[in-house]
Amino acid sequence: MTILDGKKISNDIKNEIAARVDKMKERGEKVPHLAAVIVGEDGASLTYVGSKVRACERVGYKSTMIQLPHTTSEVELIQQIRALNKDNDIDGFIVQLPLPPQIDEEKILLEVDPSKDVDGFHPMNFGKMALDMSTFIPATPFGILELLERYKVETQGKHTVVIGRSHIVGRPMSILMSRKGWPGNSTVTLTHSSTKNIADITRQADIIISALGVPDFLKADMVKDDVVIIDVGITRVKDESQPRGYVIKGDVDFENVSKKASFITPVPGGVGPMTIAMLLKNTLLAREQRNN
Amino acid sequence: MTILDGKKISNDIKNEIAARVDKMKERGEKVPHLAAVIVGEDGASLTYVGSKVRACERVGYKSTMIQLPHTTSEVELIQQIRALNKDNDIDGFIVQLPLPPQIDEEKILLEVDPSKDVDGFHPMNFGKMALDMSTFIPATPFGILELLERYKVETQGKHTVVIGRSHIVGRPMSILMSRKGWPGNSTVTLTHSSTKNIADITRQADIIISALGVPDFLKADMVKDDVVIIDVGITRVKDESQPRGYVIKGDVDFENVSKKASFITPVPGGVGPMTIAMLLKNTLLAREQRNN
Repeated sequence: MTILDGKKISNDIKNEIAARVDKMKERGEKVPHLAAVIVGEDGASLTYVGSKVRACERVGYKSTMIQLPHTTSEVELIQQIRALNKDNDIDGFIVQLPLPPQIDEEKILLEVDPSKDVDGFHPMNFGKMALDMSTFIPATPFGILELLERYKVETQGKHTVVIGRSHIVGRPMSILMSRKGWPGNSTVTLTHSSTKNIADITRQADIIISALGVPDFLKADMVKDDVVIIDVGITRVKDESQPRGYVIKGDVDFENVSKKASFITPVPGGVGPMTIAMLLKNTLLAREQRNN
Repeated sequence: MTILDGKKISNDIKNEIAARVDKMKERGEKVPHLAAVIVGEDGASLTYVGSKVRACERVGYKSTMIQLPHTTSEVELIQQIRALNKDNDIDGFIVQLPLPPQIDEEKILLEVDPSKDVDGFHPMNFGKMALDMSTFIPATPFGILELLERYKVETQGKHTVVIGRSHIVGRPMSILMSRKGWPGNSTVTLTHSSTKNIADITRQADIIISALGVPDFLKADMVKDDVVIIDVGITRVKDESQPRGYVIKGDVDFENVSKKASFITPVPGGVGPMTIAMLLKNTLLAREQRNN
């Protein structure tokens, strides 16, 4: 059994990016500049955005954090996004979700210039991905592909079962794993809340990608021997014995499933750290595609 | 066993559309105007475009057919598309595929104004579909949804197996059948040329949507009882006994599979006629969304 060590790989990627940024600086080129917009004071969102800003600093990117009050109107946020679209110094930017209820997320998404949409959430980029064109791949799916690639996990002709049909993980993973090429080219089953007898399906899987958000959902009797497990679930479970008062749990009963798996991601330290690394990678791609 | 009669349903839809166009005329409103661009003299393409133009006439739409020589350059075709984008009288248009080798289809696709892309092939529209936003759904998948809906075929919680991952049928069907809502909400397995042991998968299917283009590929021993069969395959098979010298064959061994099926589309007369009806429906939607 091999642990798919997202912490290590994401560090490798950040080091690779930092080396490239150093070269950009040596050549006097503009370094990538990522902006993050956050509306409101949600604790988890502030933590995520904070990590993204720190990651930028670590690899030598310029970063800008724009924090707007939770009372921000849709029109005001749209004005902010249009300003970022126009700002030639910004290579890419993200709008941290969720947004407060007075703002329509779909409308906001559509305002982002696709060439700066390093989250890959704009329908233009999502459609290009689904149609096998080159584009920004959303960071979490991109991170999963990168893990499979760096550990040389065979995917061609395998049966991949994806659990959950979210726009940011399940749906794009189901598309990416069935595309021609590697990683990909596998037979893909997408399961979700309306799926019946899910264990009958997961037991057939060579690769399981779970993005459900239900702690310990996937048990050892639901998988076959030598399965590859990608656990995208991140749930905070109350635990008073911990200094923070909670532990982070994945969708997979790691202790028991790992005994049957050929490859498995831990939680934390698996897919999670990859997400930020791939956001940095998308920002680098955005910079390279701009010609200012 | 019920035949999913695409010929009848597509006629019903055309009659419904014709009635709406009559009302538009009565009210003195502009009627929908569809344009079709065809490059070269490919016989099958000319036949398809001809049917589309005739269908427009039948429901009372205005239609324009633009035939360009096979020597047309990419730049010339792009100029033509930009003219159609700007032309306020045109509500929607299609560029008949395939295009000659000197023209990059992807580039052409990206030139079409998404609001006039009644084929639903532009990545912007494809992405909206994959992200559950309202948009033009490609005509063949849209026609399949319509057939399932009009015959009240249950899809929720069912296992749908899609054969083939093409951009115009397999990929969008795999997305649409797994979306929330009806028709949809089924567990979807997307199979393709790299899939191993496909019969093991099709035998588990409650619904099979085959878009492979291999005549008589799906045999009776590959399906379970009461399966729902949607056959999108259309292949010309040589048959000198026929006046045209060929017969049209689907992917499914209809004679034997139909004995086990609960619903099945014939070929011809199943999905085929639905495609043009749904192109007309998309053109009507395009007209309604324009405000001139």
